[in-house]
Amino acid sequence: MSTDRIHNFNAGPAALPLPVLEEIQESFLNFAGSGMSVTEISHRSKWFDDVINDAVARVKRILKLDNRHHVLFLQGGASMQFCMVPMNLLGAGDSADYVNTGTWSTKAIKEVDLQGKTVNVVASSEDRNFSYIPRPIAFNADAVYAHITSNNTIKGTQWAQFPETGGVPIVSDTSSDIFSRPLEMDKFGLIYAGAQKNMGPAGVCLVIIRDDLLARTPGDIPTMLRYTTYAEKNSMYNTPPCFAIYTVQLVLKWLEETIGGLDKMAELNRRKAGLLYDYMDNSGYYRPTAQKESRSLMNVTFRLPTEDLEKTFVAQALENGMGGLKGHRSVGGCRASIYNPAPLAAVEALVAFMKGFENKHG
Amino acid sequence: MSTDRIHNFNAGPAALPLPVLEEIQESFLNFAGSGMSVTEISHRSKWFDDVINDAVARVKRILKLDNRHHVLFLQGGASMQFCMVPMNLLGAGDSADYVNTGTWSTKAIKEVDLQGKTVNVVASSEDRNFSYIPRPIAFNADAVYAHITSNNTIKGTQWAQFPETGGVPIVSDTSSDIFSRPLEMDKFGLIYAGAQKNMGPAGVCLVIIRDDLLARTPGDIPTMLRYTTYAEKNSMYNTPPCFAIYTVQLVLKWLEETIGGLDKMAELNRRKAGLLYDYMDNSGYYRPTAQKESRSLMNVTFRLPTEDLEKTFVAQALENGMGGLKGHRSVGGCRASIYNPAPLAAVEALVAFMKGFENKHG
Repeated sequence: MSTDRIHNFNAGPAALPLPVLEEIQESFLNFAGSGMSVTEISHRSKWFDDVINDAVARVKRILKLDNRHHVLFLQGGASMQFCMVPMNLLGAGDSADYVNTGTWSTKAIKEVDLQGKTVNVVASSEDRNFSYIPRPIAFNADAVYAHITSNNTIKGTQWAQFPETGGVPIVSDTSSDIFSRPLEMDKFGLIYAGAQKNMGPAGVCLVIIRDDLLARTPGDIPTMLRYTTYAEKNSMYNTPPCFAIYTVQLVLKWLEETIGGLDKMAELNRRKAGLLYDYMDNSGYYRPTAQKESRSLMNVTFRLPTEDLEKTFVAQALENGMGGLKGHRSVGGCRASIYNPAPLAAVEALVAFMKGFENKHG
Repeated sequence: MSTDRIHNFNAGPAALPLPVLEEIQESFLNFAGSGMSVTEISHRSKWFDDVINDAVARVKRILKLDNRHHVLFLQGGASMQFCMVPMNLLGAGDSADYVNTGTWSTKAIKEVDLQGKTVNVVASSEDRNFSYIPRPIAFNADAVYAHITSNNTIKGTQWAQFPETGGVPIVSDTSSDIFSRPLEMDKFGLIYAGAQKNMGPAGVCLVIIRDDLLARTPGDIPTMLRYTTYAEKNSMYNTPPCFAIYTVQLVLKWLEETIGGLDKMAELNRRKAGLLYDYMDNSGYYRPTAQKESRSLMNVTFRLPTEDLEKTFVAQALENGMGGLKGHRSVGGCRASIYNPAPLAAVEALVAFMKGFENKHG
């Protein structure tokens, strides 16, 4: 069966490591000797305790977290975090700084507004179609937090370095580059990430929150929208999305034990993205859309000379076993998403195909 | 592998139909010829459109819904609905009626209170430890909705008939008996159900909402907490929990094509529960905890003569390949959850074991 698989360049849900999928498949009718599928075991069982505790331990180890950080698994994706962050962190008279680097930042900003809270958009790259990461940025010293989107899937940009905020804790949507490189966690008060790009299937969102921000959670907002509800119950106030958390656990195991951790992962990611960008920079036929210093190592967005050629490119790539190369419906063009699980061989195959396509159509 | 499986009486997450699990396993590395796992396909792809559209169509067909009903898939479980229902349906000056039949109703009531909205608890069975369904009940004619919990997993009670509300639309938490019997959908304005009992794995919550209630959704609450957000985008405003929805689709297919629909399902469920209750009523050794006319066909709760015997019973049952028989940690005792997927053979095996246990220890 695995020989029929394509190279998957989807932006999310996206490719998962093949050994992880094989392990899920192998044990799907009988998980860890329980006589049940992992989808059938109780979340109050020792089997699931082992899953979630191992997942949490791996997150802490991989990101070198200290005891001030709480690792939570929530539902609703990053989009739910757009509203939960201000709901939990901003009290009366408080304000937050947001940097607008594209569609997802824009949505996050809108949710603060909807709650009637004060949001200062301290920088934006909208003037050049969100093709770059703005810097330097003057943050407000009295902001409760400074919100950024660390990687922008649609426009293909990424923060290469995180901004200096003068001590204001960064809150980051890291959905599309979590675990792709080491993070200086001292700078971050909260990071959140939908799983379906770098660490698992759709249906679970990782939230890492520091004590000082957790302490801001008010007691009078709905129970399921309070970070404390999850922190106090190891993410099991109610039934968690067990299968998604289990898959995340296996991906993190793969990251630690097969890849060798974040330094190795980052090196591999630089190599993968480098292959594509270097080839395109030399070719001239393909045109990367993000500004050079702001390029994403996760989502490589590019154009061909015409939209017709782009259509042909995407169709012929699929015929050659490479899927998911169409750009986001809001911007067009092409996009190769090469998250952690995308193997080097997939990128090499794509570059080889691009060369052939250029030779034929260029 | 399947021969190592146990009879699974878990209360949720719970047993799933074996043919469904086998189909998921079989196609796990290559879904529908896509060359990707179902966990790797884009939610914007034709593959996933087919999944979600088929799931919605099956829900409508099985429950005989008309065009006034919208079928939505959300995250956060029934617990998230405890807050979303009043947030969406109750405006300034509005009130809702709630019937308190146990832990889950109590939590639902608390979330209305937390929002500072008016909740009238019009009936409760707390006086006798939630061992019965109260009736008749006088509902308030000006209530926006009347909330019930159709089946109570912890206390083992279930509404055999739904209450007369004088035209007030019923909102029901049906997490633990959805699709177990035909429903007169005319009475219901909204039903919600976490999937992990009768229709799938944890991680997705089905919401069926009628036009007149959907129209009450305010525009100024957070986007992800508005029912309209899901209704307008076929549950895909953001990335949905694809794997969980796919599993629900397969369970509904099994319900329609293998079982033969709700009438057949209800008949089988009556037969399964009847085997257990009839045996216990005749035995006298086992004591069902719910009052006879309020007994759940989904969660059969019972006691043995002593707590020590209960411990021995649960342990020996597991040794004999029957798991999940321990009562909820808040009440003790024993519980056999026999949702739709639990086969008749599992119940027959349990009754045989119970007879043997009684003969030995009674």
